[in-house]
Amino acid sequence: MKTAFLSISLLAGLPAMAQTSQPPAEDFKPSTLNQPGRQYPQVNSERRVRARVVAPQAQSVTLDFLGGAKYPMTRGEDGAWTVVTRPQDEGFHYYQIVIDGAGVPDPGTRYFYGGSRWGSGLEIPAHDQDFYALQNVPHGQLRQVHYYSKSAGANLRCFVYTPPDYEKDLTKRYPVLYLQHGGGEDETGWGSQGNAGLIMDNLIAAGKARPFLIVMANSYVPGAFGPGRGPAAAGSTNAPLAGATNAPAGGRGPGGRMFDFSAFSKVLLDDLIPFVDATFRTLPDQPNRAMAGLSMGGMQTRSITLAHLDKFSHIGVFSGGSIAVSNITDLAAFKEKVKLVFVSYGSRELGSDLANRGGDPRANTEALKAAGINAHFYVSPDTGHEWQSWRRSLYQFAPLLFIEPNR
Amino acid sequence: MKTAFLSISLLAGLPAMAQTSQPPAEDFKPSTLNQPGRQYPQVNSERRVRARVVAPQAQSVTLDFLGGAKYPMTRGEDGAWTVVTRPQDEGFHYYQIVIDGAGVPDPGTRYFYGGSRWGSGLEIPAHDQDFYALQNVPHGQLRQVHYYSKSAGANLRCFVYTPPDYEKDLTKRYPVLYLQHGGGEDETGWGSQGNAGLIMDNLIAAGKARPFLIVMANSYVPGAFGPGRGPAAAGSTNAPLAGATNAPAGGRGPGGRMFDFSAFSKVLLDDLIPFVDATFRTLPDQPNRAMAGLSMGGMQTRSITLAHLDKFSHIGVFSGGSIAVSNITDLAAFKEKVKLVFVSYGSRELGSDLANRGGDPRANTEALKAAGINAHFYVSPDTGHEWQSWRRSLYQFAPLLFIEPNR
Repeated sequence: MKTAFLSISLLAGLPAMAQTSQPPAEDFKPSTLNQPGRQYPQVNSERRVRARVVAPQAQSVTLDFLGGAKYPMTRGEDGAWTVVTRPQDEGFHYYQIVIDGAGVPDPGTRYFYGGSRWGSGLEIPAHDQDFYALQNVPHGQLRQVHYYSKSAGANLRCFVYTPPDYEKDLTKRYPVLYLQHGGGEDETGWGSQGNAGLIMDNLIAAGKARPFLIVMANSYVPGAFGPGRGPAAAGSTNAPLAGATNAPAGGRGPGGRMFDFSAFSKVLLDDLIPFVDATFRTLPDQPNRAMAGLSMGGMQTRSITLAHLDKFSHIGVFSGGSIAVSNITDLAAFKEKVKLVFVSYGSRELGSDLANRGGDPRANTEALKAAGINAHFYVSPDTGHEWQSWRRSLYQFAPLLFIEPNR
Repeated sequence: MKTAFLSISLLAGLPAMAQTSQPPAEDFKPSTLNQPGRQYPQVNSERRVRARVVAPQAQSVTLDFLGGAKYPMTRGEDGAWTVVTRPQDEGFHYYQIVIDGAGVPDPGTRYFYGGSRWGSGLEIPAHDQDFYALQNVPHGQLRQVHYYSKSAGANLRCFVYTPPDYEKDLTKRYPVLYLQHGGGEDETGWGSQGNAGLIMDNLIAAGKARPFLIVMANSYVPGAFGPGRGPAAAGSTNAPLAGATNAPAGGRGPGGRMFDFSAFSKVLLDDLIPFVDATFRTLPDQPNRAMAGLSMGGMQTRSITLAHLDKFSHIGVFSGGSIAVSNITDLAAFKEKVKLVFVSYGSRELGSDLANRGGDPRANTEALKAAGINAHFYVSPDTGHEWQSWRRSLYQFAPLLFIEPNR
């Protein structure tokens, strides 16, 4: 997810170089996202990655962080190609292996959807990783749910997180957060690499967040895009970065690719929300409904919530722009209806042209506060346009939801 | 999942050859398991697969059905390697691409766990595919659930299918089927490539099966295997077929690999069943609890249910052996407690030494019937040791569960 922010990563001292001049610390351990029993890729205490792929007849093998640095790998006498990278940011990273020109998943890892492809991911241990770790606390459930969308004319899939006590008191009803993925991702992202369920389990166990449902849907609506306009263009097999990929879209991305959010808005408002309210024990009113999203999902959140203040009371925009006072047509109505505006970025994103489109996000958020709106601005330290920023954003955002602002 | 049955497949007229002599029918369509927008692999009306991988600098590229046929691919002038296979069995198949000696997933497909690795799968349309297709009927939910296992000392994951009406009448309680994967697979198999949820949704919508819960756990218990004895041996990175793979185990497989089912039996009986009965609205007694499994999971089912007739009343063994009258120590007690024994195989498996270990499964099952036991034997037409046999087995088995035998 770093495509748009590569230049910022470079400024931040993470150039794309094949090898380090110092020998790496020899405390490498398998990434926690590896397949059962697989020893590679590994990560050491310096946050360097050691990758290893057996390809005895290959001429060239490269480790390729999607939209980021590429590291040529070196063949050993055993036919295995290896490399040690520069230190990486804490958290989750998409990558692939390029073997003689073929971009393929690393067979050592589990697979994640991002960059418009299912492919490899690895995890750099973080100083604050406990908040999204599997702890011995009561756990909610992550449910795969099919719903019929009249506007799409199709059975669509979403995931619903239900909190640990959802099955205990069957008379209790819950608020709902609609939480969206980014460009080139899908409805699996938040529950998988986003660790949304574990973040909520840990917050709830610590008494830091009110239990609520999280609904994660796919904003790429089937049939809503012309040929070559879906999440991956037709014919893009073996070209994981072709198509929409990670460029923040909505008419703002550097790729200039225009996304029309109206198809998803219709699915969300006409089909998904009514389905969720009919299927789950929700509190089905505006004060108990939130929307948030990352990158493109943040832009969708801004666009959809501002147009439907009668539907949503809490708004979260993670690495996807901000809300300026000038975006609000009726400030008095907004103040009455919107109980929270939360805007966040990774620290490495701040100051970029992209983050500042529509105005500096911190300044915009401060102006909302000055106008009397319950607005929060959060910066994830030492991260860019990547999942660690968004895990942390959810961790900061969730405790602010569905409570009295000044509690 | 064909490792042990390759010889049978060969007899059945599916030799491993690179190309066909007749030109294939040019009605290829993308496999339904492809990643969004990906055009390859494709399948035609003759059940042939056309694979395509872009690897411009590669020297050699092979399509490799795990444990089955391998097809050398041919380089085109565009740098893309292609091949058309012989007709494949209807249903789901695991495969990988070998690029210059590196066994990797095909970047065109979604990924599935089997053969002790996450990797590619493809789907050959079947004449009877409606029973496991996503239809416009009420859908249940597939829930990812974490439970603490005291005997394993770890938080473990399982999946639970809840039927469509589970959220409607909150006073209703349900029977439970514990449904196990095969060797080299995990708790994701039945809900993903097994289509268990869709099979139940369709059966329930047609009034053919009573609604019940299905619990799918991982029988590879962490810490229960010594070094190199887990589902994938340590150090087997990039060797997807190393380790346990698909050989039916439990002391019966040709690989001679011994599995000890006691660790899983303890997790199931001491931790998982009590957790499920405490968490879901179950009917928590022996008459309302079934166990079934495929291949190694069938052997576990046989072993665990025969030793715990006080816990299970319905038994399903899919491609995993059978139950002989001589296996039953107290026939009178068995007849009183066991309401159903269901045994199934793919037609291509029948007659093999492996299927006949412990006696011919059909003869064994007929003998159970003769002894007054409600026993059923099912043969999946024109399939081997593969998921199409097991999807069909579940479809035949589920209607027999938790009803009066002679209804």
